[in-house]
Amino acid sequence: MVSTTPVPQGARITICEVGPRDGFQNEKTFIPTGRKIEIANALFASGLRHMQVTSFVSPRAVPQLADAEEVLAGIDRPEGAWVTALVPNLRGAERAARTRVDAVHTVISASETHNLKNVNRSVDRSLGELEAVFGVLSQAGIAVEGGIATAFGCPFEGNVPPEQLARIAKRYHELGAGSVSLGDTTGMATPLTVQAAIRAIRAAAPGLDIHLHFHNTRGVGLACVMTGLSEGVTHYDAAVGGLGGCPFAAGATGNICTEDLAYLLQESGYETGVDLDRLIEAAALTQEVIGRELPGQVLKAGPRLTRHDPNLTVTAAG
Amino acid sequence: MVSTTPVPQGARITICEVGPRDGFQNEKTFIPTGRKIEIANALFASGLRHMQVTSFVSPRAVPQLADAEEVLAGIDRPEGAWVTALVPNLRGAERAARTRVDAVHTVISASETHNLKNVNRSVDRSLGELEAVFGVLSQAGIAVEGGIATAFGCPFEGNVPPEQLARIAKRYHELGAGSVSLGDTTGMATPLTVQAAIRAIRAAAPGLDIHLHFHNTRGVGLACVMTGLSEGVTHYDAAVGGLGGCPFAAGATGNICTEDLAYLLQESGYETGVDLDRLIEAAALTQEVIGRELPGQVLKAGPRLTRHDPNLTVTAAG
Repeated sequence: MVSTTPVPQGARITICEVGPRDGFQNEKTFIPTGRKIEIANALFASGLRHMQVTSFVSPRAVPQLADAEEVLAGIDRPEGAWVTALVPNLRGAERAARTRVDAVHTVISASETHNLKNVNRSVDRSLGELEAVFGVLSQAGIAVEGGIATAFGCPFEGNVPPEQLARIAKRYHELGAGSVSLGDTTGMATPLTVQAAIRAIRAAAPGLDIHLHFHNTRGVGLACVMTGLSEGVTHYDAAVGGLGGCPFAAGATGNICTEDLAYLLQESGYETGVDLDRLIEAAALTQEVIGRELPGQVLKAGPRLTRHDPNLTVTAAG
Repeated sequence: MVSTTPVPQGARITICEVGPRDGFQNEKTFIPTGRKIEIANALFASGLRHMQVTSFVSPRAVPQLADAEEVLAGIDRPEGAWVTALVPNLRGAERAARTRVDAVHTVISASETHNLKNVNRSVDRSLGELEAVFGVLSQAGIAVEGGIATAFGCPFEGNVPPEQLARIAKRYHELGAGSVSLGDTTGMATPLTVQAAIRAIRAAAPGLDIHLHFHNTRGVGLACVMTGLSEGVTHYDAAVGGLGGCPFAAGATGNICTEDLAYLLQESGYETGVDLDRLIEAAALTQEVIGRELPGQVLKAGPRLTRHDPNLTVTAAG
């Protein structure tokens, strides 16, 4: 049994912005490279420092991110910036090694069926290929965040055994990954699955930093963050405006929303380093570029202590 | 210092459906009485037993709920049903006393400005009038849930001191209220304000049952439920489909969504008595009657273990 300590009040929580990767890749209309850079820079300007900026995937598979190298070359890098990109395979790692990313986010699905569909390999074959990927990145001085997709459930296979997460995390740890990132690819994370996953990984790979990446597909993304905080996890991914989607649920939202997460963390007594007003501005810019209403709620309602004119009418409310 | 014990795994949590009151009152187009009854009955059929069905307010102020008596007379009352209605004043209590409600939800705003605008009285005048209201209801054998609006913040005044909540709750307790209900009228509740409110009320009115009524205006409604559970609270209001609105934030959602709450609670190891599939059917019916997309996420995405055809395509996801 691994003991768990909640994150203490006042602690610093890292928010990793993944909108430019996980959000944009779900957008059908190509976002001009200059606008992608503008959004990333607005996000940095709000105080965010960790950002997954793009993905080194095949431009045929994901045309939206075909400009990975240009985006990486164009963005600001404020002091303390930690710029990452997703790579699904060795070819992606080789491209990443020629850029200025600080870390690469690799990806293996915990579910066999999903891994086969996502990267056309069995989980064991993906694990076997990691050594070459880590070799290329290590030579380039690039850190690795070991990503596990469908970590909290698979839309094809259902529940994912925590032992499978522990097995993959252990291999990442052996290879020298700086962290393991549990991806809630299709919004199946719940407080109990999150708790079980964290505890299984801590037991199998003690000392390995755990990152949590939730989608809000079923509305419980921020509730799962509360569970993560109770279990002592200090790193969460989120997408500006709540960008992203779920291929299995039309109209469902994607990643948890960065502004809503920053608001929750700040109002729960944690440090985020983020200026919420400027983050809302970055979300408004993103919404304008994307051209449709985004699901983020703080973007619509404003910060908590927004004062209103008492001459507005209200009706008997409880 | 009042000690707090989290709600233990396996415990029964009460969900009180407030869509027919807090949700409908925000709808501009009159919902035919028969359809209101149909929705209430579909919600009962899903296993929900607590429902705030309507409000005894002036039909001029809230024309949508002018059919309060007809709705109450028309709904099913399955075994164990606990039917409530909101009353803002003595006149409302007198109307309620002539119906078959099990309990009445009174309402006093914690904020002076909001109370003035909501019921045209100072907080002290509202407190002073409670005795007559309790008298009428007690004679009719109707229980009282003591509602406190703007309990977690006021859109005009900002923060609400926990002492003000404690003062109102204490008065409710003295008068014999069965519970106090903390209403997050405009979506300002946060984990820290929720924790402070609960602890202040427990200290001032020991033994008084606490109900929590969150809005999801800033996306953190279910995160606040997690805080409530950590503090031992077992009763939560919610509205089917996430009905409701916020007069101060166009496009912002209203109450936390009943299906999403039931999903969260069930997936966190609590008993709710709700059949989620039937609840989703009731939400779909509500959405059809309301005639626009409702914010509920589980309504769009389905239950967690919805399986998908592995022949669907996915793209490199983390």
